[in-house]
Amino acid sequence: MSKAIEFVGTAMGDTIGLVIANVDKSVLEKMNFETKYRSIGIIGGRTGAGPHIMAADEAVKATNTEIVSIQLARDTKGGAGHGNLIIFGSDDVSDSRRAVEVALKDLDRTFGDVYGNEAGHIELQYTARASYACNKAFGAPIGKAFGICVGAPAAIGVVMADTAVKSANVEVVGYASPASGTSFSNEVILQICGDSGAVRQAVIAAREIGCELLGTLGSKPKNDRPSYII
Amino acid sequence: MSKAIEFVGTAMGDTIGLVIANVDKSVLEKMNFETKYRSIGIIGGRTGAGPHIMAADEAVKATNTEIVSIQLARDTKGGAGHGNLIIFGSDDVSDSRRAVEVALKDLDRTFGDVYGNEAGHIELQYTARASYACNKAFGAPIGKAFGICVGAPAAIGVVMADTAVKSANVEVVGYASPASGTSFSNEVILQICGDSGAVRQAVIAAREIGCELLGTLGSKPKNDRPSYII
Amino acid sequence: MSKAIEFVGTAMGDTIGLVIANVDKSVLEKMNFETKYRSIGIIGGRTGAGPHIMAADEAVKATNTEIVSIQLARDTKGGAGHGNLIIFGSDDVSDSRRAVEVALKDLDRTFGDVYGNEAGHIELQYTARASYACNKAFGAPIGKAFGICVGAPAAIGVVMADTAVKSANVEVVGYASPASGTSFSNEVILQICGDSGAVRQAVIAAREIGCELLGTLGSKPKNDRPSYII
Repeated sequence: MSKAIEFVGTAMGDTIGLVIANVDKSVLEKMNFETKYRSIGIIGGRTGAGPHIMAADEAVKATNTEIVSIQLARDTKGGAGHGNLIIFGSDDVSDSRRAVEVALKDLDRTFGDVYGNEAGHIELQYTARASYACNKAFGAPIGKAFGICVGAPAAIGVVMADTAVKSANVEVVGYASPASGTSFSNEVILQICGDSGAVRQAVIAAREIGCELLGTLGSKPKNDRPSYII
Repeated sequence: MSKAIEFVGTAMGDTIGLVIANVDKSVLEKMNFETKYRSIGIIGGRTGAGPHIMAADEAVKATNTEIVSIQLARDTKGGAGHGNLIIFGSDDVSDSRRAVEVALKDLDRTFGDVYGNEAGHIELQYTARASYACNKAFGAPIGKAFGICVGAPAAIGVVMADTAVKSANVEVVGYASPASGTSFSNEVILQICGDSGAVRQAVIAAREIGCELLGTLGSKPKNDRPSYII
Repeated sequence: MSKAIEFVGTAMGDTIGLVIANVDKSVLEKMNFETKYRSIGIIGGRTGAGPHIMAADEAVKATNTEIVSIQLARDTKGGAGHGNLIIFGSDDVSDSRRAVEVALKDLDRTFGDVYGNEAGHIELQYTARASYACNKAFGAPIGKAFGICVGAPAAIGVVMADTAVKSANVEVVGYASPASGTSFSNEVILQICGDSGAVRQAVIAAREIGCELLGTLGSKPKNDRPSYII
């Protein structure tokens, strides 16, 4: 490949990690980024938005980078959800590369609470301390415990959202549905913050009802990686 | 499940029917519904928008409920069309539950004129008397005969639309296409109203040309349920 | 079929070509076209936007027609990209029919530099002299050499874009990504113009890196038709 090493690695969800040491100026201008770093790290995949955003959140905590852009495509290879394109910026290209490495590696963990069957999927995410990726994508307050509850088809997500907030004292940060806050995906996504134990409790309650409901439409939903929210 | 029974049943199109007796207030606020019922009935599926809207139309006629929200995802499990999320509201939860039951049951009928093959699908719907679901989703005049003609890929829908209005004296209520009025789905959707016989005649003419054209791209299009528009 | 022959033919990408001699006035009004031709030619398919736009560009050069509308659905039958609906207008229906025939035939060529595997696709297009379809869809300057570089998942498209503009002296006409300029598809699309040799050189450089990167996510990407950009 070119002199500036561009390929970092791949991960599940048809995810690729890339780095550009010095983005061409004319392309950079058309990208409409708020912040103009010339060195960027890129992760993008076909399947998943939550896992990638949570992994990017860890990456930005662990490196001297900034989240420049998070974009969600209507994708999942014919599934009901999103694909993703996330860009890190840094003054030094090695920081961007490191952020991409951290994010790719962390996907093994953040795919842990994605459960699917032939009819759809549910997804749960949790962090004890939200950082800049969760803030940019979901408006999560920096430094607070934060979680998301996703159900697809969207009808399941409605009940998951209601169950989550009834099960613990959490604050609703956001609520996305096919017509608003998603890329017309067939999902309801609840975003919550609050005390660490409460957020975890809410997410676990949503997971239980979500798996049960999705199971009524097909086989028992299963995850491809070990659950991390315990 | 929880004390308030939440699961009502399932139906074709990966459709699930659910009820929440008393939606959590913080979630309800984020849902941005125009009308604020605490008791809601929910139907949602991966495949189909027309069948679900027509079934919801019957449900709202048969019960003391209101249509609170109709949202269409770009879905169909990789097909060219929409999935759906429809919410009924009522003061008494038993009304919402009944509406969901009626809608789920009616899907057996409203899927009758959806014809598909490996290249796409066409869909026809007809009601002698449009109610609040058709009004909310398509702007159909309440109480008038109403029909929709859908073709996917969208090019087929253009000819179906033209054929429909040329075949009978109907009024065009709406016309949706990938860039406008759909969730970027690959469909053209014509919405017509008028005299009962004219609407039915127009829909039947669109069905004939639609099946013929879709058949040029693959095998003979077929429906999974008996046709109801005769 | 009806007296005005409506069916012209089919082509790859589940593409159909149709003609309407005299579009019904009430439908035409709802279509919201800027230009009001009663005779229209229609091409539309499930898979592909670039190939159809480039083919339409040749068709409009070769006939006495105008491009009335180009709409891109989020489709590709579960892939990461677009389907399409393109409408030609003409005073004489035989001109529209001829445009559709030319476009359908040219798809055999314009699908030549679409390369796919199980993880995604990349696509390259090039013309020595852009006409009205490229102008309408991408803002290409009429008469200038023009090319597009597409990568899906979008992350690959970012590197392809950067590689293209670094490899030759071209001007960036546009840059589309999941959140902007696409129908929420998982693609980055770079549009470039300039000197004929430079555009071709840039597109070829993007093709090389794009194929290499897409190959890291799966099998060697391949095209279904012979490459035409040489």
